[in-house]
Amino acid sequence: MAAWARAVRGLLLDVSGVLYDSGGDGGVPIAGSVEAVRRIKASGLKLRFCTNETQATREKFVKKLQGMGFDISVAEVTAPAPAACRILKERSLRPHLLVHNDLVPEFAEIDKANPNCVVIGDAAENFTYANLNEAFRVLIGMEKPVLISLGRGRYYKETDGLKLDVGAYMKALEYACDVQAEVVGKPAKMFFESALAEMGVPPQQAIMIGDDIVNDVGGAQRCGMRALQVRTGKYRPCDENHPHVKPDAYVNNLAEAVDIILQQL
Amino acid sequence: MAAWARAVRGLLLDVSGVLYDSGGDGGVPIAGSVEAVRRIKASGLKLRFCTNETQATREKFVKKLQGMGFDISVAEVTAPAPAACRILKERSLRPHLLVHNDLVPEFAEIDKANPNCVVIGDAAENFTYANLNEAFRVLIGMEKPVLISLGRGRYYKETDGLKLDVGAYMKALEYACDVQAEVVGKPAKMFFESALAEMGVPPQQAIMIGDDIVNDVGGAQRCGMRALQVRTGKYRPCDENHPHVKPDAYVNNLAEAVDIILQQL
Repeated sequence: MAAWARAVRGLLLDVSGVLYDSGGDGGVPIAGSVEAVRRIKASGLKLRFCTNETQATREKFVKKLQGMGFDISVAEVTAPAPAACRILKERSLRPHLLVHNDLVPEFAEIDKANPNCVVIGDAAENFTYANLNEAFRVLIGMEKPVLISLGRGRYYKETDGLKLDVGAYMKALEYACDVQAEVVGKPAKMFFESALAEMGVPPQQAIMIGDDIVNDVGGAQRCGMRALQVRTGKYRPCDENHPHVKPDAYVNNLAEAVDIILQQL
Repeated sequence: MAAWARAVRGLLLDVSGVLYDSGGDGGVPIAGSVEAVRRIKASGLKLRFCTNETQATREKFVKKLQGMGFDISVAEVTAPAPAACRILKERSLRPHLLVHNDLVPEFAEIDKANPNCVVIGDAAENFTYANLNEAFRVLIGMEKPVLISLGRGRYYKETDGLKLDVGAYMKALEYACDVQAEVVGKPAKMFFESALAEMGVPPQQAIMIGDDIVNDVGGAQRCGMRALQVRTGKYRPCDENHPHVKPDAYVNNLAEAVDIILQQL
């Protein structure tokens, strides 16, 4: 029946909007998702959680999800900050950080003296006029400015309203310094590829499941994976008319996707 | 000798970097500029001061220049805020303002209730995380977001270092809302055209004199004017190798430009 569900060996799950909805005190699991993660693990399929979360360390993030009942560990999470750390080490880059306070521990082992690049994440309240000017001055003072951005999201919703995401501030610095940021996190190809490598599964045998038509679905498909959009989280009916991206299938939620995939094993 | 200086009836002068250099307590006149403005006025040439200044009302701005000895009045100044007010009135737009506190009085007569557009200027300390989110929410809440930007500068220098200019924040909102800002101020064609109209001089008979290769020189030339770059203010030797813009002439400063122009009258 569902041709898209055949010959699968690994699943990549987006987290916010697929496993849970963020709310006032952290979030509420989406109906059926706790059980769906358990069933994936019991099936023998490989599994990675692939998130653009940069407002907390993976430890804190995973603890929150465990508190909601999810079977998840830090080692199973692919997130932008550790991916950025790998790049920093490989290229001997010493970052000036413009990130959320709760993310700073992820960079504990990175040399930050005498910075030769800027790393920007969703800094939230840390996006002050002074901090933006400081990051800008570090960048513009470099012979060849290097800007690494933990994602390129436009905005997101919190209980007290919409907030500008890291992508907007990334664009401000890009324009001011006439530089193009290197984006770590979805939809960057390298980010999906490292998640696949961690699972040991080639893209043709993996399915990405997410609520974001561009960053989850479009990004994964460009890597040669199949990708489903769930009708939960930030999904909107107008996504189904997206001019460039068409998921391999729509599912009502993670539980439905897992039902169909497990039937084909 | 200087073919570029022939058949001139009007001059447009940039202010910061041409008349004065901004410093700690407001600024210092550039040598010869006070006298040069007097000589232009005595010559019978038409004159407009054409500035992108948006951190103060024209009244305050002119008072500062008068204090340095310049013969200048509010009626002679073309600035972004009054140009924006004309647009707001013409199109019945009610702005949400994200501007410097000292600029707010320029919008005193504009209806700001129930906003249907956002006007962004160099808000400096007003570029807080909360204010940017608020401007964003107003924009994204519109059926067709209208963003008016008082300039598109990347950054500028103050005594305590480089600061991000309005253009960087404009880009952040453009990206977040998938909208293109309408830029009022240099290098917008309409801005130069309104200065020319105020002088009653056609572009072929006008010369723009500025220190900014893109916003002054490039913008004026696109309107059919001649344009000089002074080697004062933000001028840098590398401007002389600019890939797209070539001034009709370089002059060491305003005084030299006026010398040459007046000789040709």
